[in-house]
Amino acid sequence: MKNIFSFLFAIILLFSCNSGKEKTQLEQLTIEEKIDSTNIKSIFNTALTEGKSYEWLRDLTQNIGARLSGSAAAEKAVLWGEKLMKNTGLDSVWLQPVMVPHWVRGEKEVANYTVNNKKKNVPVCALGFSVATPEEGILAEVIEVKSIQEARELGEKMKGKIIFFNRPFDNTLINTFSAYGGCVDQRVQGAIVAGEYDAKGVIVRSMTNSIDDFPHTGTMSYGNLPKEKHIPAAAISSRAANILSRDLKENPTLKFFLKQHCKTLPDAPSFNVIGEIKGTETPENIIVVGGHLDSWDLGEGAHDDGTGIVQSLEVAYLFKKLQIKPKNTLRVVFFMNEENGTRGAKKYAELAKLNKENHIGGLESDSGGHTPRGFSIDANSVNTQLLQSWKKLLSPYGLHDLIKGGSGADIYPLKSDNVTLVGYKPDSQRYFDYHHTSNDTFDKVNKRELELGSASMASLIYLMDKYLYSNTVIKP
Amino acid sequence: MKNIFSFLFAIILLFSCNSGKEKTQLEQLTIEEKIDSTNIKSIFNTALTEGKSYEWLRDLTQNIGARLSGSAAAEKAVLWGEKLMKNTGLDSVWLQPVMVPHWVRGEKEVANYTVNNKKKNVPVCALGFSVATPEEGILAEVIEVKSIQEARELGEKMKGKIIFFNRPFDNTLINTFSAYGGCVDQRVQGAIVAGEYDAKGVIVRSMTNSIDDFPHTGTMSYGNLPKEKHIPAAAISSRAANILSRDLKENPTLKFFLKQHCKTLPDAPSFNVIGEIKGTETPENIIVVGGHLDSWDLGEGAHDDGTGIVQSLEVAYLFKKLQIKPKNTLRVVFFMNEENGTRGAKKYAELAKLNKENHIGGLESDSGGHTPRGFSIDANSVNTQLLQSWKKLLSPYGLHDLIKGGSGADIYPLKSDNVTLVGYKPDSQRYFDYHHTSNDTFDKVNKRELELGSASMASLIYLMDKYLYSNTVIKP
Repeated sequence: MKNIFSFLFAIILLFSCNSGKEKTQLEQLTIEEKIDSTNIKSIFNTALTEGKSYEWLRDLTQNIGARLSGSAAAEKAVLWGEKLMKNTGLDSVWLQPVMVPHWVRGEKEVANYTVNNKKKNVPVCALGFSVATPEEGILAEVIEVKSIQEARELGEKMKGKIIFFNRPFDNTLINTFSAYGGCVDQRVQGAIVAGEYDAKGVIVRSMTNSIDDFPHTGTMSYGNLPKEKHIPAAAISSRAANILSRDLKENPTLKFFLKQHCKTLPDAPSFNVIGEIKGTETPENIIVVGGHLDSWDLGEGAHDDGTGIVQSLEVAYLFKKLQIKPKNTLRVVFFMNEENGTRGAKKYAELAKLNKENHIGGLESDSGGHTPRGFSIDANSVNTQLLQSWKKLLSPYGLHDLIKGGSGADIYPLKSDNVTLVGYKPDSQRYFDYHHTSNDTFDKVNKRELELGSASMASLIYLMDKYLYSNTVIKP
Repeated sequence: MKNIFSFLFAIILLFSCNSGKEKTQLEQLTIEEKIDSTNIKSIFNTALTEGKSYEWLRDLTQNIGARLSGSAAAEKAVLWGEKLMKNTGLDSVWLQPVMVPHWVRGEKEVANYTVNNKKKNVPVCALGFSVATPEEGILAEVIEVKSIQEARELGEKMKGKIIFFNRPFDNTLINTFSAYGGCVDQRVQGAIVAGEYDAKGVIVRSMTNSIDDFPHTGTMSYGNLPKEKHIPAAAISSRAANILSRDLKENPTLKFFLKQHCKTLPDAPSFNVIGEIKGTETPENIIVVGGHLDSWDLGEGAHDDGTGIVQSLEVAYLFKKLQIKPKNTLRVVFFMNEENGTRGAKKYAELAKLNKENHIGGLESDSGGHTPRGFSIDANSVNTQLLQSWKKLLSPYGLHDLIKGGSGADIYPLKSDNVTLVGYKPDSQRYFDYHHTSNDTFDKVNKRELELGSASMASLIYLMDKYLYSNTVIKP
C-alpha cells in the first residue's frame, strides 16, 4: 500500500506544481490582463468541453471526403459549409462566386520497372496540373538529379529520358515546413526545366520526412513552356525513391514505365463560403479567420485543411456561445482552391478592394490540426510587438512561438502595412506524414489537439479585436 | 505560373523568417553558450539523421511486445536490454536482481448487462492486483458514485452491490496528467472503500480524456483490508461508462455481470538493466537517465514506456557517436516494475545508498514519446534556477517548459537536496488515448517526435554533466 501511495503522491505533486505555476503567472498580470486571462480560460474551457469542431470534421471527411476544386465533392462541401455557418448562427452567410481550375486525375496511375528480371511496382500519383502520358504510357531510361540546377546543367542530355528529382527533406530542420520549403521547387519547377529539353517525363520524390509508401501529390507548373513541351509529372513514394536510386546505381540503363490519365478541363464555377458576426462598435472594420475548403483528391483532406475550416468556424461558435460580441466585424471564410490556384483567395482580396472593405486583421489555419505551438505574424513592427506582448496570456496554453513570419496563402493577398496577418502554427512534426496523400484521414486528427487549436485561434482573435484597431489602424 | 510562384514565395518567406529568428537568438549568447548551442545542434542533427531509437522500439514492441513484471516477456526484455546496451558500446553493462510482484490476468474478462431485453457487452479489463471473481462471475445491482468520498458516505448501502466509480477526466486541464492525477484515486482506492463495506465488486471508468471503447488497466490496492474483503475490481471503457450511467438512470435495478480470472502469484525474480559510460573527471559522480522496461500486459507498451527506454539509451548512443565524454559517470537504467510496485526503483536507490554511490542528477522519460515540450525539475532552488537558465539554449527545439515539478516514479527514490531530478515532458494531449490499453502500440509513435525527445534528453544531460557538479554538489 505504501508503494501505491508514493506513486499517487508523485502524481499529485506534479499536479500541484503545475497549478502553482499558473498562479504565479496570474499574479504578474495587470487588472486588464487578468480580465483577458479569465476570458481566454473560458474560451479554452468551452472549446474543450462543448467544442463542435471534431464532429464537424468527422462529417466533412466521412460524408464528403476529398474535395478537389471543380469536383462534385467540392460543390457538396460548399453547400455543407453554407448550411453549417447558418446553423452556427452567424449574422449573415453568403457564397462568393469564383471560377476555379478543374484538373482530374482519371484512372489510377501505374509505374514500374524491372531489374534482375524482377518487376517492381512503384507507388505513384500524378502531380496536379500534369498532363497524361500517351495511352500506352511512357518507357524511358532515368536520370537522377538532386536539384533544378543539376537538371538544367544536363541540358540536351535529358532528351527522351525520365528525370528523377530526388533531393530529400533536410530532417535536421526542426520545423518541417522549412524542410518542405527547401525541396518543393523540385515538384513545382521540375517539369519546366525537363520539358524545355524534351525529357519524356518527370518523377519527383514525395515531399515528406518519413520513409513510407505514400506518394504525395501537389501542384506543379509548366511555366511559360509551349503546350508541346508539357511532359507528364508524377510523385513517387519516398521509399520507392530510395529503392530506385539504389537500383539505378547498379542498373543505370533500367527503363521506368509510367502511365497516367490526368487532364485539365475548362475552369469550373465554385464559391468561397463566407459568414460574419457584425461588429458592435466599428463594424466597418473586418477581421478575417479562415482556412481552405478544397483539398487534394487523395485521402479525406483532414489535416489539409479540414481542421483549418472547422477551427475557423469554431472561433465564431465560441464567440456566440460565450456571448463575446466583437467590436469589429468577425468574418469566417472557407476559401476555395488554395491547393491549385488560390483563386478563392485572390477573388476575396479583389472584391474586398473593389468594395472598399477595411480589413484590419486576418488569421489563417492551414498547417494541420496538431497540438498548438504559436502564431506566425506578418504585420508592421508596432502590431508585431503588440501581438508578441500577449505571450504571457497565451503561453499557459503551449503558445510560445510568436514569431515574425508568413501567415498563409489564403489571406496573403490582403497584405498591406495596416493589416495584421497571422498564421496559426501547430506542431509540425507529423504534418508531412499525411500532407497531400491518401493517408490524410480523419483518424489522424486528435480531438483535443483540434479543440486546443480552435481555442488558441479564438483567443488571438479576441485579443486582436480588443486591442488591434485602437492601436494603429488609420480609418479609411 | 504567377500563381504558383506566389505560392512558392509564401513558403520561402516563412522559411527565411524562421532562420532569421535562430540567428537573432545566437547573437544574444555568450561564447560559452555558443559552444553549447553548437553542441546541442549536433546532438539534434545526429538524432534526427542517425538515430536508432525508432528501430529499437520497433524491435522491442514487435518482437517482445507487452512485458508485465514477472512474465516471460519481461525476462526476454531484460536480455534484450542487456544485449542492446552492450551493442551500443557502453563501458560496462550489468543486471541488478530484484524480486517483483507477479500478477496475471488469465482468461479474457467478460462483462455485460441487459436492459429492455437487450444484452450489452461491456469492454472491460481487470485492474492490476485485483482478485478474480468466483468462477461463475458476479451479478449485482450497480451504485454509481463520482468519488471515494461519495462511496464512503454510502457505507453499509454498498453491501452486495457493484460500485461504479464514474468521475471523468477534467478536460479543461491543459496538461492531461493533471486530469489523470485528479481521477486516479478512484482506480487505486475504490476497492478499499467498497471492500470495507462488503460490496461485491468495483468497476471504474477508464482513465482517459477520450470517449472510446478501450478499457484502461492500471494498478489498484486493497490497502490494509483483510483478504476476505478483497473484491474484484475492473476498468470499463469511457464510452461504456457513459452508456451505463445513462442506462442506470432509466433502470436503476439493472444487474451487472462481471467475470475475471486474474490472480497474484508469488514474487518472481527479475532485473534492472544498467549500463554506463565512465566519467572522465569525477567518475564517482553519477547522472542517471532512464525509463521503465516493464509495461502493462495489454498493447505493446510503446508509449508506456518503450519510448522512455529507447530514448534513455539513445542519450548514451549520441554521446558515443559524437564523442562527448562526460565528466561524470553517465548511467542508463532500464527500471523493472514501475507499473505495479516500483520495486526496481526502490532496489536501485537502496543499493545506491548501500554502496555509497554519489548521484548528482537523474532524468526520467515516462510521459510518452510525443513532441518535446520541456522538463519538470525537482531540485533545490539553486539548481532549479541553473536548469531554467538554459531555456535560451533549449527553446529553439520547442523546449519552453522548464518548470518546478515532479520528476518520475523511478528516480524519485533518489531524491535528496543535493540530487537534481528531472522528468522529460513531451506533449501530453494524446497520451491517455493509449495509456495502459491494447491501443498502446508502435504505430502510435512518430519517429521524429521520438528522436527529438532523445535529443532533448541528451542535450539536458550534456548541460547537467557540464554545469551541475561544479555548481552546488558537495563531495561526500
